[in-house]
Amino acid sequence: MNEQLAELRARLQEIDDLNAASALLNWDQTTYMPPGGAPARARQLATLGRLAHEKSIDPAIGRLLDALQPYADGLPYDHDDAALIRVARRGYERLTRVPTELVAKFYAHSAASYQVWTRARPDNDVGAVLPYLEHTLELSRQFADCFPGYAHIADPLIDFADYGMRAETVRALFAELRAELAPIAHAITAQPSADDSCLRQHFPESAQLAFGERIIRAFGYDFTHGRQDKTHHPFATKFSVGDVRITTRVKEHDLSEALFSTLHEAGHAMYEQGVDPAFEGTPLCSGTSAGVHESQSRLWENLVGRSRPFWEHYYPQIQAVFPDQLRSVPLETFYRAINKVQRSLIRTDADEVTYNLHVMLRFDLELALLEGSLAVKDLPEAWNARYSEDLGITPPDHRDGVLQDVHWFGGLIGGSFQGYTIGNILSAQFFDAARAAHPAIDAELARGEFATLHGWLREQIYRHGSKFTTSELVERVTGGPLTIQPYLSYLRRKYGELYTL
Amino acid sequence: MNEQLAELRARLQEIDDLNAASALLNWDQTTYMPPGGAPARARQLATLGRLAHEKSIDPAIGRLLDALQPYADGLPYDHDDAALIRVARRGYERLTRVPTELVAKFYAHSAASYQVWTRARPDNDVGAVLPYLEHTLELSRQFADCFPGYAHIADPLIDFADYGMRAETVRALFAELRAELAPIAHAITAQPSADDSCLRQHFPESAQLAFGERIIRAFGYDFTHGRQDKTHHPFATKFSVGDVRITTRVKEHDLSEALFSTLHEAGHAMYEQGVDPAFEGTPLCSGTSAGVHESQSRLWENLVGRSRPFWEHYYPQIQAVFPDQLRSVPLETFYRAINKVQRSLIRTDADEVTYNLHVMLRFDLELALLEGSLAVKDLPEAWNARYSEDLGITPPDHRDGVLQDVHWFGGLIGGSFQGYTIGNILSAQFFDAARAAHPAIDAELARGEFATLHGWLREQIYRHGSKFTTSELVERVTGGPLTIQPYLSYLRRKYGELYTL
Repeated sequence: MNEQLAELRARLQEIDDLNAASALLNWDQTTYMPPGGAPARARQLATLGRLAHEKSIDPAIGRLLDALQPYADGLPYDHDDAALIRVARRGYERLTRVPTELVAKFYAHSAASYQVWTRARPDNDVGAVLPYLEHTLELSRQFADCFPGYAHIADPLIDFADYGMRAETVRALFAELRAELAPIAHAITAQPSADDSCLRQHFPESAQLAFGERIIRAFGYDFTHGRQDKTHHPFATKFSVGDVRITTRVKEHDLSEALFSTLHEAGHAMYEQGVDPAFEGTPLCSGTSAGVHESQSRLWENLVGRSRPFWEHYYPQIQAVFPDQLRSVPLETFYRAINKVQRSLIRTDADEVTYNLHVMLRFDLELALLEGSLAVKDLPEAWNARYSEDLGITPPDHRDGVLQDVHWFGGLIGGSFQGYTIGNILSAQFFDAARAAHPAIDAELARGEFATLHGWLREQIYRHGSKFTTSELVERVTGGPLTIQPYLSYLRRKYGELYTL
Repeated sequence: MNEQLAELRARLQEIDDLNAASALLNWDQTTYMPPGGAPARARQLATLGRLAHEKSIDPAIGRLLDALQPYADGLPYDHDDAALIRVARRGYERLTRVPTELVAKFYAHSAASYQVWTRARPDNDVGAVLPYLEHTLELSRQFADCFPGYAHIADPLIDFADYGMRAETVRALFAELRAELAPIAHAITAQPSADDSCLRQHFPESAQLAFGERIIRAFGYDFTHGRQDKTHHPFATKFSVGDVRITTRVKEHDLSEALFSTLHEAGHAMYEQGVDPAFEGTPLCSGTSAGVHESQSRLWENLVGRSRPFWEHYYPQIQAVFPDQLRSVPLETFYRAINKVQRSLIRTDADEVTYNLHVMLRFDLELALLEGSLAVKDLPEAWNARYSEDLGITPPDHRDGVLQDVHWFGGLIGGSFQGYTIGNILSAQFFDAARAAHPAIDAELARGEFATLHGWLREQIYRHGSKFTTSELVERVTGGPLTIQPYLSYLRRKYGELYTL
């Protein structure tokens, strides 16, 4: 048994090493790679991806899993070996259903599509991407069809990102949230908006970066096991438990851009840094789902990083860093500026109240595309119509409309967006659980102390990696299922103080 | 035939993609990786190396090469396909002789040995590395024994780095050079040494980096196909023809450190940037040998970058960058400072005249270790004795003695050093050929114009990659075999003007 487990681990480790190499090639591609490196890099990534896929579907893994199943069946559900065998089997059974040729087509097409999109977006050239999007949709459907028996064609795609979720359950959840959220958003955006001109002064890049890094170091992000670099589209990435990096972008005329992206990505990265090192090299060694991952980034970015107690501590510090810009700006003005609610075009810049409206319309459009009730050629118009309807603002161009997010242009249609809103919902549920366990957390935030919160998250969430599914984890941590009430209460409490609701 | 050639290319491409990924993992390891990433990185590199080796010795490659041999035999020697099949066969026949288990042992041992050395060197702890060195020697011998029939046990190791070279030929070449060079070095070091205090002032890092980059851009190093980053031990590395990077280190109290390392590595990198892009992904797509590679780095670093005409153009520019430091320093003083000859301990800091003495003693010690005429435990003492004898200086510690170079501690004993001196010899031979073809080159250097020289090197050397062996290339380019006379003439001419010879 030990021998078979060791062989399984060795095979999983090899796959993980290939995937880690791919992750580094991707990181380099978006941070330091000179333009001339692009064509070869796409090919190198395709090769590594193909090799990892070949290794992942090796029948020897299936035989090892079968041989180990009786051992796993005799273990408690939460035993590490039981979890390893369970999660490895889930991955194996998924991947073996997808023909290698389809995977290769995906790699080739998504690289080409991404390249076209990077040029088309600045040029506002939606026509250039539509044929690629058409093919992406076709491949996404073929992918879904590798998993027959689904209730909705998006189910397999959603399941890949947020295991256990289905189109139907997400739709119901989003409908419930939307019914409560839309009136709040509309009530606020009808009122005069906050003055955020204090954020629009000139803030030198290096001071912005240093200040963000000071905060995340205090949060608990470990720079001996990570680093921050600049990129165009911020992300967190992992090469091992000991090397989890984040990226950010800086706008010298917008103080919020780099700061909150740094806090957000550090949330993702602390989750990955906190996984039990014993899981290294196995499928247990990463966050359990897109939704839970996003809950960690949003918790640190918003529930901590845009909270009043947090800024009671940090505002004098940021004033000291930018004295000319902030000396005469009261804390209250700054706090309202970083929490300004407004009808806006760009998801990643959206405030906490309207953010989920951006997400939900994308989720609906993905489903409509997959179902065939929306044709790709009609997508740009449908996008604009939903922005008018849901956010009361019509995109003046496609650049800041349907072309704004990379997701559909760099990979799959389906399963890409629901995790953002699930993450928001869970961020409040988890934060409430943390404060219930440690009522001192609020006072600690106001002193710039994060060890209790970080330690609790580490113990309750981070260390488990993918050992538990989203719903298992939510049940263990909060004592109940996923629910939108804590999130709505949080928004009502916070924004009820800033606006008339 | 076309189909078989296409399959061969696809297989070689896959190997190249894995090797390129390894190169990036190495680059990252020595530039940006946080300390926590080290253990996993060593494992990832071992996995990629093992997979590349497995793919390289796949019998399918042997069958394809056999099937393609009649086609190759019908082609002119210098036809690209003939060269591809020839060079691929050479690599295949070499690698298939080495058991995969020995390769795996090498990867594991060299990573461990390197780690021990990085700690042992600052601690001056030669005792810590000796057991590792003992095992490296044992593995190096096992490696050589995969190639029975050698005249000297170092031959297979030398052949890997400098194809076609043998211990006997290198020994004879070095003896000839040494007989001429040692008296010159001794004559010069007996005279009062140049005053290089002008280089030992404070020069801010960013200005140093920018100035070096200005020069190599003028040389012809293409920053859209490369970049420069900081590291501990400068090197050039290639991920594709379109992405060839260099690294450097900066000492703010030593103007020569970063500057000449940048020029040196740019020489390596321009060679790789200049390979025919049609060779991408094949074994033709890199410099042909360690010696020829070094000839390109030394040509730009020394024959161009430490020459009088070059500084006639650039000295006013560097004075403008560092006015406080250099305003009152005459060009002649600066020129003598950057060409100061002295008895010194560190190979990489050595001047042009004494440099080869450092190399030749290492070559002799390698051979003695492999032959068994020198025991590993006696190496530190033998090192010091040779420094006293050859350079008239005894290392005060092992840190700046036997522990100074990574080569023996990170890989093989044998074949690591001869390329440096062969490169010096060839740099002068090639430079003479360039000036014979284009007598205007000297005048152009004095105007900061490098296009003729760079174009000639590209046409004569760079573009061929590994198509021709060292001796074939030297014959084609210079019309004769490798010879030390141009190099000696160069040194006598240049240093005869600075010192009494």
